[in-house]
Amino acid sequence: MNDQDAIRKLIDDRVTAMRNRNGRAAVAGLARDIVAFEVAGPLTAPAAQVTDAVATQAWLNSFDGPIDVDIAELAIHVSGDVGFAHSIHTLRGTHKDGTTLDLRMRSTLGFRKLDGQWKIVHAHTSVPR
Amino acid sequence: MNDQDAIRKLIDDRVTAMRNRNGRAAVAGLARDIVAFEVAGPLTAPAAQVTDAVATQAWLNSFDGPIDVDIAELAIHVSGDVGFAHSIHTLRGTHKDGTTLDLRMRSTLGFRKLDGQWKIVHAHTSVPR
Repeated sequence: MNDQDAIRKLIDDRVTAMRNRNGRAAVAGLARDIVAFEVAGPLTAPAAQVTDAVATQAWLNSFDGPIDVDIAELAIHVSGDVGFAHSIHTLRGTHKDGTTLDLRMRSTLGFRKLDGQWKIVHAHTSVPR
Repeated sequence: MNDQDAIRKLIDDRVTAMRNRNGRAAVAGLARDIVAFEVAGPLTAPAAQVTDAVATQAWLNSFDGPIDVDIAELAIHVSGDVGFAHSIHTLRGTHKDGTTLDLRMRSTLGFRKLDGQWKIVHAHTSVPR
């Protein structure tokens, strides 16, 4: 698999993990020291929290049924052991308490190839204010 | 100059351009087809608008005195002809109407080396909601 395809697979695997509400799979592609700028919360989210499979699973478990992630306008740039990607994501799901999530947001991901394996070392997700 | 330094210079040149309120210099490092996710506005800002030196100058002219940009927690990743950077920016300035700008935001930039010249091909700037 070439690097472009490997990065595309990393993105698709996360979407599949969300849909299947699999916390461990959802964080598998993240570097332990990821610098994460998330939609809500502090300017930078703690890496230990972002990569925590148990906390991610708890969040996924708050949904009733699959979480649908649609990725549009995806562009991937890669050279050597560095890459980045940007896209527009639509997240849709229904929480067990009946509230719904329906969010369009911007996603930028930064990648590094570490020991022959591509990892997400930076994630920036936002909605315009 | 190595690639890391060239990208650092591109970032610093934009800060200097903001401080000096120089619209042309502020957009000089941007690729014509930049994909820009800005703090406010639509999900994606039109590239023609983002790279418009005249519109940028008009915005800069709305300030009374220099715009101060402080860059913290900067990390630059680069390999071959692709790079990305992320940082926390603090923007401070006073508009001519007396209102002040004092904004801490997250910045991610994507770079490509085109014809031997590094350009910003992607910019994602946001505040948490």
